[in-house]
Amino acid sequence: MPPPLITLTTDFGLADPFVAAMKGVILSINPQAVIVDVTHSVRPQRIEQGAFLLGQACPYFPPGTIHVAVVDPGVGTPRRAIALQTPGAIYVGPDNGLLSPALPDEVRQQAGLRSFTIALPSQVKGVALTSQRFHRHPVSPTFHGRDIFAPVAAHLSLGVPLEQLGPPVGEVVALPPFRARRRPDGSLQGRVIHVDAFGNLITDVHESQLTSPRVSLEVAGRRIAALSPTYGEEQGRLVAVLGSAGFLEIALVGGNAAQELGADIGEQVVVRLAG
Amino acid sequence: MPPPLITLTTDFGLADPFVAAMKGVILSINPQAVIVDVTHSVRPQRIEQGAFLLGQACPYFPPGTIHVAVVDPGVGTPRRAIALQTPGAIYVGPDNGLLSPALPDEVRQQAGLRSFTIALPSQVKGVALTSQRFHRHPVSPTFHGRDIFAPVAAHLSLGVPLEQLGPPVGEVVALPPFRARRRPDGSLQGRVIHVDAFGNLITDVHESQLTSPRVSLEVAGRRIAALSPTYGEEQGRLVAVLGSAGFLEIALVGGNAAQELGADIGEQVVVRLAG
Amino acid sequence: MPPPLITLTTDFGLADPFVAAMKGVILSINPQAVIVDVTHSVRPQRIEQGAFLLGQACPYFPPGTIHVAVVDPGVGTPRRAIALQTPGAIYVGPDNGLLSPALPDEVRQQAGLRSFTIALPSQVKGVALTSQRFHRHPVSPTFHGRDIFAPVAAHLSLGVPLEQLGPPVGEVVALPPFRARRRPDGSLQGRVIHVDAFGNLITDVHESQLTSPRVSLEVAGRRIAALSPTYGEEQGRLVAVLGSAGFLEIALVGGNAAQELGADIGEQVVVRLAG
Repeated sequence: MPPPLITLTTDFGLADPFVAAMKGVILSINPQAVIVDVTHSVRPQRIEQGAFLLGQACPYFPPGTIHVAVVDPGVGTPRRAIALQTPGAIYVGPDNGLLSPALPDEVRQQAGLRSFTIALPSQVKGVALTSQRFHRHPVSPTFHGRDIFAPVAAHLSLGVPLEQLGPPVGEVVALPPFRARRRPDGSLQGRVIHVDAFGNLITDVHESQLTSPRVSLEVAGRRIAALSPTYGEEQGRLVAVLGSAGFLEIALVGGNAAQELGADIGEQVVVRLAG
Repeated sequence: MPPPLITLTTDFGLADPFVAAMKGVILSINPQAVIVDVTHSVRPQRIEQGAFLLGQACPYFPPGTIHVAVVDPGVGTPRRAIALQTPGAIYVGPDNGLLSPALPDEVRQQAGLRSFTIALPSQVKGVALTSQRFHRHPVSPTFHGRDIFAPVAAHLSLGVPLEQLGPPVGEVVALPPFRARRRPDGSLQGRVIHVDAFGNLITDVHESQLTSPRVSLEVAGRRIAALSPTYGEEQGRLVAVLGSAGFLEIALVGGNAAQELGADIGEQVVVRLAG
Repeated sequence: MPPPLITLTTDFGLADPFVAAMKGVILSINPQAVIVDVTHSVRPQRIEQGAFLLGQACPYFPPGTIHVAVVDPGVGTPRRAIALQTPGAIYVGPDNGLLSPALPDEVRQQAGLRSFTIALPSQVKGVALTSQRFHRHPVSPTFHGRDIFAPVAAHLSLGVPLEQLGPPVGEVVALPPFRARRRPDGSLQGRVIHVDAFGNLITDVHESQLTSPRVSLEVAGRRIAALSPTYGEEQGRLVAVLGSAGFLEIALVGGNAAQELGADIGEQVVVRLAG
């Protein structure tokens, strides 16, 4: 039996002892658990960015991995705590859209332009985390990561069935899939959903939307005439590439595109597809 | 037998290979050790902040955990290297107050307003780390984390008894407990001891000192009229909450209180308790 | 058998899910692998700094450790992917000089002032990573860390022999050893190759080059009259010390030398040795 694997995705940063407290709680319950950090640098309370980054990492983990995510502006309010079990993994966190990577894109399509409550598809089981014997007590009103999500994940990693964690839920909050909008003229209206450590602008324009190999785009007043196959080596050139996750990225070769363009999360991108 | 657990708390940051070198040394001696980072973002040589952050994380780790802490402005000078064994854990680091979380508050109360040498209580055993066969050689005068604290922790995790590491010590340097001072008029004079990744100001006002449920406070020229039960959802509001560690925190809902107030570690906070 | 140990050194930062994806890939192939981060804060595409930091960490890991390093401005271009096996460890990464710590200094001496292709010495075996069955598919043109280097390291950790990964290579790109140049007048002309988290300036002046105990140096218009044995306690003093890695460092006691001097990577340092 491989050791059980738990990942953590939060907006806690690494400077504070919050992540360590979660790890201590997990290892107190299941000393055999292997814990991997996805990221703790989600911008404070940016649920959408958290869902995006979690979604980028999940596909690379083995079946049965337990993904704990905590970007939780509503902690202490009546928002629910949930766990979702898919054929490939288990997701644990607040019911605010953050766990959207647990849901297939076609299901998330039901969500509106922003987040929305949708019905769980048949292949995903969900429960509300109300069964207090799997929590750490007393439960802090401001730190469910430590007192609810971490201990629940640890118990799941010991083999506790999802059903014991609380009553089933039929609907959860979901974000729409990360896809640019198609405009009446056939062009794509996308936006930057993440800026990576290199200053590359990651957009919601997905490779499946690039139905023509001839593409041009505009961002922050600059025009890029074509997709490049790689970042290449021509220093100082602004390029558009399909990133390793299948999303269109804008990069400055040898530099920082976000700084060069003064662009950040939310910046608009228009992509034209030649017929 | 669960694998032995070692935590690390330093001011080394994660950009340099210092923490990795410590981990390599530990795993060279005990390949079964599980290592968890508490934080490596203690501000350079801020012993008090290091002790606070270590103290926030320790309670969540299982019994027998070995906590290594290195915030060590006196490295290479005659300050002692020590290990302290309490009923719940072992602490390894410099004898400069950093390991204060190993000591009960009532013992730390003996320390003055700043750090002080106090007698170890009977339930805590201490040794000076002078037994060179448990060190890595040659011992660098500037990196005891790698050459003394890491190998000592690894040997402890293999079951080496504390007594073999060096002679017993009866007194250690300790910091007073993190508590605001009570002023003659009954109000509390506290201060910010940590700024977390959200910009929340963590003060030394402990929940045990809030003897009335009706509290108001002043910080950086701003007044907060009452405690809030949670961070809540009213964007832009300055709130005071009891944080997950039992200390009063000042937060800006949806924002960064430290930036908003221009406040940092050391900022004064006055708390008035209604009779 | 101790669990196999894999280290990671990249310029990916920790904010993005890149490092987590590599870890997920590794643990999908070998769930028993123990993964340690050396650093993910190499400055973007600074191969030399990456090689320096990797070289600082390697000596502290146990024999047989697999070091994966990814600072790879040429990803997607025809630069080769390689693995190098030395008597003590295995190194996996791009063939761009980053893996220079696998090579003895006297071999690296063959490289020119900048990087150069050198013949592998007899004690180092090298292969080009062309055997696609050890890669993750499809291989992204921009993320060989996830799709080539991580899975190759995981297979190596399972005991796959180096030879199966691809054909042998006889030459690799190497950086010259980190050593200051000796000038005609006998002084040393060094430079800053890394700035650590404390703002200390780490130079390429190696202790083996300090053939006299009486040393003075100049950096950024400031003169330091002698080496100090430790960082010491005289606040605000600019000191030169031999760091824990054997390189000359310039530090500001209780402060940040890089800020104080306005100095960064590349800054020149002149060291005079008294006869």
